[in-house]
Amino acid sequence: MDEFKFHAKMPIFVARQWVRHRTASINEYSARFSILDKEFYIPEPEVMGIQSKSNRQGRDESVSKEQAEAIKKLLIEDAARNYEHYEFMLNDDGMGKPKDPERDMFARELSRMDLSLNFYTQWYWKTDLHNLFHFLHLRADPHAQYEIRVYAEAMSGILKDAVPLAWEAFEDYELYATKLSRPEQQVMAQVMKENNISFSKDEILNSAGSTGMTNKREKEEMLEKFEKLGLIKK
Amino acid sequence: MDEFKFHAKMPIFVARQWVRHRTASINEYSARFSILDKEFYIPEPEVMGIQSKSNRQGRDESVSKEQAEAIKKLLIEDAARNYEHYEFMLNDDGMGKPKDPERDMFARELSRMDLSLNFYTQWYWKTDLHNLFHFLHLRADPHAQYEIRVYAEAMSGILKDAVPLAWEAFEDYELYATKLSRPEQQVMAQVMKENNISFSKDEILNSAGSTGMTNKREKEEMLEKFEKLGLIKK
Amino acid sequence: MDEFKFHAKMPIFVARQWVRHRTASINEYSARFSILDKEFYIPEPEVMGIQSKSNRQGRDESVSKEQAEAIKKLLIEDAARNYEHYEFMLNDDGMGKPKDPERDMFARELSRMDLSLNFYTQWYWKTDLHNLFHFLHLRADPHAQYEIRVYAEAMSGILKDAVPLAWEAFEDYELYATKLSRPEQQVMAQVMKENNISFSKDEILNSAGSTGMTNKREKEEMLEKFEKLGLIKK
Amino acid sequence: MDEFKFHAKMPIFVARQWVRHRTASINEYSARFSILDKEFYIPEPEVMGIQSKSNRQGRDESVSKEQAEAIKKLLIEDAARNYEHYEFMLNDDGMGKPKDPERDMFARELSRMDLSLNFYTQWYWKTDLHNLFHFLHLRADPHAQYEIRVYAEAMSGILKDAVPLAWEAFEDYELYATKLSRPEQQVMAQVMKENNISFSKDEILNSAGSTGMTNKREKEEMLEKFEKLGLIKK
Repeated sequence: MDEFKFHAKMPIFVARQWVRHRTASINEYSARFSILDKEFYIPEPEVMGIQSKSNRQGRDESVSKEQAEAIKKLLIEDAARNYEHYEFMLNDDGMGKPKDPERDMFARELSRMDLSLNFYTQWYWKTDLHNLFHFLHLRADPHAQYEIRVYAEAMSGILKDAVPLAWEAFEDYELYATKLSRPEQQVMAQVMKENNISFSKDEILNSAGSTGMTNKREKEEMLEKFEKLGLIKK
Repeated sequence: MDEFKFHAKMPIFVARQWVRHRTASINEYSARFSILDKEFYIPEPEVMGIQSKSNRQGRDESVSKEQAEAIKKLLIEDAARNYEHYEFMLNDDGMGKPKDPERDMFARELSRMDLSLNFYTQWYWKTDLHNLFHFLHLRADPHAQYEIRVYAEAMSGILKDAVPLAWEAFEDYELYATKLSRPEQQVMAQVMKENNISFSKDEILNSAGSTGMTNKREKEEMLEKFEKLGLIKK
Repeated sequence: MDEFKFHAKMPIFVARQWVRHRTASINEYSARFSILDKEFYIPEPEVMGIQSKSNRQGRDESVSKEQAEAIKKLLIEDAARNYEHYEFMLNDDGMGKPKDPERDMFARELSRMDLSLNFYTQWYWKTDLHNLFHFLHLRADPHAQYEIRVYAEAMSGILKDAVPLAWEAFEDYELYATKLSRPEQQVMAQVMKENNISFSKDEILNSAGSTGMTNKREKEEMLEKFEKLGLIKK
Repeated sequence: MDEFKFHAKMPIFVARQWVRHRTASINEYSARFSILDKEFYIPEPEVMGIQSKSNRQGRDESVSKEQAEAIKKLLIEDAARNYEHYEFMLNDDGMGKPKDPERDMFARELSRMDLSLNFYTQWYWKTDLHNLFHFLHLRADPHAQYEIRVYAEAMSGILKDAVPLAWEAFEDYELYATKLSRPEQQVMAQVMKENNISFSKDEILNSAGSTGMTNKREKEEMLEKFEKLGLIKK
């Protein structure tokens, strides 16, 4: 099966969600080994949502403009200060010598602990198409955190170009499919029954034709499902 | 997560399908190490299907009674003869000595090659509830071969007793769920539109009430789906 | 990481051992879907070992020439007869029509159960270098059954050509490495102590030089190990 | 196989190393969903190592006492300030209401990004004995970062109590085993040859006896290895 490898750079708190998809191989830039760049994520005011009331792990509309500015200032100051302290502890002149010869160079694997979770890390992430679709299905979903969703959406755009037919099938049969539970099917059948609504197979197939559905097997499967949903005259 | 361990005995050709579910740990009785029992599977006449015409990997209605008898006879004779030869090659008196002292005891790992695929093997098979449901979804499906489906169905019965609530949720939201592809949704919306059919949310909720649906969140999700399917008045 | 894909054909009892390595993707020729060829494995007389006495899952020296001939005859007759019956049940003229129009074509997924475990199946088997080395380590091992070992050895030959440096490292540090348990190390140290044997680091390094070892880090690691084994003067 | 479940609390940078062992199931406390406690890791002065010169991902001896104090002060101040800002952004009175009613409650999934990598997270981590030993082998190793090693060592202590026999076997045959590469074996054989040293099997077995080795099979395997190493008279 085809495999896809992405070189991605993302805030550490995003990497921590991403890494939970375990069916991929990851090669991450190591802050034990190397020095992280001074790059950190600050959300745009329009995505600075307030804590959601209905969903404990979500956000609602944005905070006020003033508050957004205040938070932005705070986040930038903290990240900048922590990075300054990170560099101070490392005490590295970029050539492997101490910048300040009076002080030791503190270990990289320790200095990094002062960086905040919005600093960027980067990795090579490789997986096959099947697992990639699964990842995108979960992470391009509106319930995923916005900050990982933008990655899922960018990756979707790449895939759409790379494997347009597979992508369309993924959209048709997975991403935009609607799964009706047994109780939901019962409600639909009940609605049809109470309103005396039902169609002949030909009526359904006529409508199918006008939406452009042509595949015979696809039509048969559809009729089978519509029958279970109570839409078809017996 | 809860884990389930099954001690199962099945024909080798069934084990070969089963083993493809890799997210389980398996401890199989070894025919390199031990001697297999004289136990083999012979299908009942009513499941002795003819080769399917529409589905190359399926079967249709049963062969004639006479033919079923002929095949049964053949399968039994072959299995019995092959097992006899297996025992002959092993030449084992059950106490680790040759039954016939004139002949060597042929290695178990070689003798077994004469057994046919309907002989029974057995194993301990352990997996968690999530992967077990996935297995049952695929193998209790009408498209699965009958001979593995009966195992999936027996395991389903056990699960139903062991975790009745989880089982019901599995039935409602997985096993008996109907997944409508994007093209199928378009056809449904088209059917509704062409026939000028649409319902108010209250009409839907009334029908939902008469099927026994009470959960508020479940109702909201349902309305969202029905809206996508073109059933709800805008 | 590099991946390797093999197209392999092997007796079903070999496939059953092979499939236990789960970190590979497999695409097997399906006997539900297609008709297996008349090809089966018959061991050469020189590998027709008798049941091992010391190792229940092994074999020792070969059975007598006469017995080998007798077993060979038996295996060939059984496989040929079972295949004949397989074809009889399938009743397929190769064009999807019954050879004998008086009889139904018995389903492929059922007919196959009469074939014995020495019939050949085939698959595409894909894995990465790391897992491939692990597979070869276990299956090219003298304790592996001869019939799977020959595959591991053939695959080793291919790898050796394809990735000579990685292969040599695999041989040096995995395949031909010797792992001394803590008790074994204690015995070695005891032997040295009781016989008043110990060497200076220079003596060891001299010998290392004459075997061609030049890498500094390799030498240091070796000295560290030899010290633990009691070979080096303190 | 037996499974072990640990409830562990560790700095986020430790969790990030730990999570790379993918053959375990993890249930982590979510900072999208909940509010993290004010708990962060500050290394003791004696483990505040300077950047290693020989190993880019390691540390050597500790920095000076004065420098350790300075770094400690910095880390504490930064963590305390960032947590204060975290609480300020959350603006949560602990009852789901804003502490300061003039300001919105900023989303948890966003506020957390200001916390530094030495804050504690916690999880349930479950794996089987085989994978647990593999984890401990890598993470109790002197090359692992000290901060994860202390967890590996604590878990080792628990295992030692829980499964003393399996633990001893793990120590004898894995943790404290010494793996000699093929080049190392060649050097050892060369050393023995150049110095005209070799032993009879009985001499070896005598020494084995005095170290307490009694198992017959263990002795045979040892002799086989020692022979490969050139220690045994031919």
